[in-house]
Amino acid sequence: MTAPASPSLESPQCPLPLNRFDHIVIGHGSGGSMTSSLIREVFQSRLGNEILSAGNDAALVDLIQAAGADGRLVISTDAHIVSPLFFPGGDIGRLAVCGSVNDVAVMGARVKYLTASFILEEGLPLADLERIVDSMAAACAEAGVQLIAADTKVTERGKSDGLFISTTGIGWAPAALEIAGSRAQPGDVVLVSGQLGNHGIAVAQARGNLGFQSGIVSDTAPLNHLIEDLLAAAPDVHCMRDATRGGLATTLVEISQQSAVGITLEQTSIPVDAPVQAACDLLGLDPLYLANEGKITVILPEKSAGAALRALQSHPYGRAAALIGRVSAAGQPHLTMRTPLGTTRVLDMLAGEMLPRIC
Amino acid sequence: MTAPASPSLESPQCPLPLNRFDHIVIGHGSGGSMTSSLIREVFQSRLGNEILSAGNDAALVDLIQAAGADGRLVISTDAHIVSPLFFPGGDIGRLAVCGSVNDVAVMGARVKYLTASFILEEGLPLADLERIVDSMAAACAEAGVQLIAADTKVTERGKSDGLFISTTGIGWAPAALEIAGSRAQPGDVVLVSGQLGNHGIAVAQARGNLGFQSGIVSDTAPLNHLIEDLLAAAPDVHCMRDATRGGLATTLVEISQQSAVGITLEQTSIPVDAPVQAACDLLGLDPLYLANEGKITVILPEKSAGAALRALQSHPYGRAAALIGRVSAAGQPHLTMRTPLGTTRVLDMLAGEMLPRIC
Repeated sequence: MTAPASPSLESPQCPLPLNRFDHIVIGHGSGGSMTSSLIREVFQSRLGNEILSAGNDAALVDLIQAAGADGRLVISTDAHIVSPLFFPGGDIGRLAVCGSVNDVAVMGARVKYLTASFILEEGLPLADLERIVDSMAAACAEAGVQLIAADTKVTERGKSDGLFISTTGIGWAPAALEIAGSRAQPGDVVLVSGQLGNHGIAVAQARGNLGFQSGIVSDTAPLNHLIEDLLAAAPDVHCMRDATRGGLATTLVEISQQSAVGITLEQTSIPVDAPVQAACDLLGLDPLYLANEGKITVILPEKSAGAALRALQSHPYGRAAALIGRVSAAGQPHLTMRTPLGTTRVLDMLAGEMLPRIC
Repeated sequence: MTAPASPSLESPQCPLPLNRFDHIVIGHGSGGSMTSSLIREVFQSRLGNEILSAGNDAALVDLIQAAGADGRLVISTDAHIVSPLFFPGGDIGRLAVCGSVNDVAVMGARVKYLTASFILEEGLPLADLERIVDSMAAACAEAGVQLIAADTKVTERGKSDGLFISTTGIGWAPAALEIAGSRAQPGDVVLVSGQLGNHGIAVAQARGNLGFQSGIVSDTAPLNHLIEDLLAAAPDVHCMRDATRGGLATTLVEISQQSAVGITLEQTSIPVDAPVQAACDLLGLDPLYLANEGKITVILPEKSAGAALRALQSHPYGRAAALIGRVSAAGQPHLTMRTPLGTTRVLDMLAGEMLPRIC
């Protein structure tokens, strides 16, 4: 019943301000005054908005009014553990925002809100954290989404790896829209929104794994506006996915299984930048299995392919969009690719791990 | 344009089944066939439901229809990094579910859905992961919520610490309900739903930090049904919070600041189990600053206190609920406590860190 105070728990007259620290320390995860300073000075100042700043245990949003009585919520979540935290063309903050924005957008939904939880390692330079949160704020602004709830935790040094960010994306879709991995059907064509493999090679390069400098830059980008343009031009999209971990091949194998169809790709139609192809040739990697963070594949009726391609190619993130294959048959699911030699190669999901911690 | 295949990327005739592994390996995070096995055999089998099993990039839910045109979405997110993964009375899985359920429920919302992202360390025993996912499934069933979206990533050994789980809770609240940290006012009373500090001491004990065995068990519990009973009996609740990291004192300091009021507690009214108090006395800890994972504090008009207390005490998770203080004055925010000696102690937020990685 009684609670004698430990002196260390008494209120200090002057709580330590954040600018007394160059690095994250364990106390920044206490849930007390140091956590408050960190949230206020690093996160609220960059990502603050009316909903986030209310400071309650959960965020209240008016999505239901926006979506109307027949709208549906669309929700996706991802952990981001990319190593290193910074890489050519992006960083873990931009990646975390774009990852969840894209997962919601490929359902045909309007992305409205994000939540983010941060796991910080003791010793993370505050300047790095600030740079990453700046990058998140810029990506949120580009995508037109608000961060509405967040959490920070801190582990001891050596028990995490700088920074992990888990994000949840929230949007709404009209009830009429039906985009799902199970809707591919014979007669559909397969599009991809641009060149494959840049993200995977850029991160490998940032790790020093390549043994050379390639100048290749990650494609990490929020694709929600590109997708809005696409759906305005071609509302009859059957399947849409972003081709992240596991690459385009794994994504299309999943769709072939969910839809119980065969899919045939034309290798010569698949856009791959020459430096990416050269890096893959040197390293024995395959761009079809490399991660992308700014590319979608779209399956839709052939009659809409022209309008869809024009819409994609009109957007900065879709300039190199191409028609790369067809849904060939219902029945036994399979993904095959016709090579330039006229042979056919069977593609399966990525087996094992090619480049760990790519996203 | 061409994509010569690396032999290692070709489809194996027999992808390695999950039961070939006792431990998590890097390939389980590839996004390929090993990730698929892990998701299907460990997660889908335990947590599967129609929404989660659709297997698209994001979940589609009908919350908007359930909530009605004037309902509001309520969303909260948390990272969970508790160490160790198992402790008396709970584990990281139960904690992760209850943490997000409770954060949404204290807004007066009906909790409906959860998302979860998992960061696994290479070498985590699969049996431990299965036990934790079982525990999540049991907590979801108890709370009546569905896990609708999930993600798994794997780090190399030594780059994370067994398992981290980030959860996002999603629910809806009627537009008429107004529960917020800014609504405490003079004349209100302060309730707590039970004994303080059990979670903090239970985790410290599991770490071997105590130097003795206390038999104290964490209070980790989903409080949404308790809160529904409370709000049915006393719909005029002004503030409600779960007193997690930073403890009851930090929670009430935050409310005093958000509402710009003074709050005065009666130390002799605050429920603390005798073994917890004894452990605190020995270790120089203060139960007011220890984390709880199954306790709420409620601020409401005095006229409703009786009905509210009866509702809390009628629920298994609220047996020891008590009236512990009053909102004393508007103006300069402060939290004070009258001690058994008749003196007054000023309480501030937790400064620094008492027990790292408590949740």
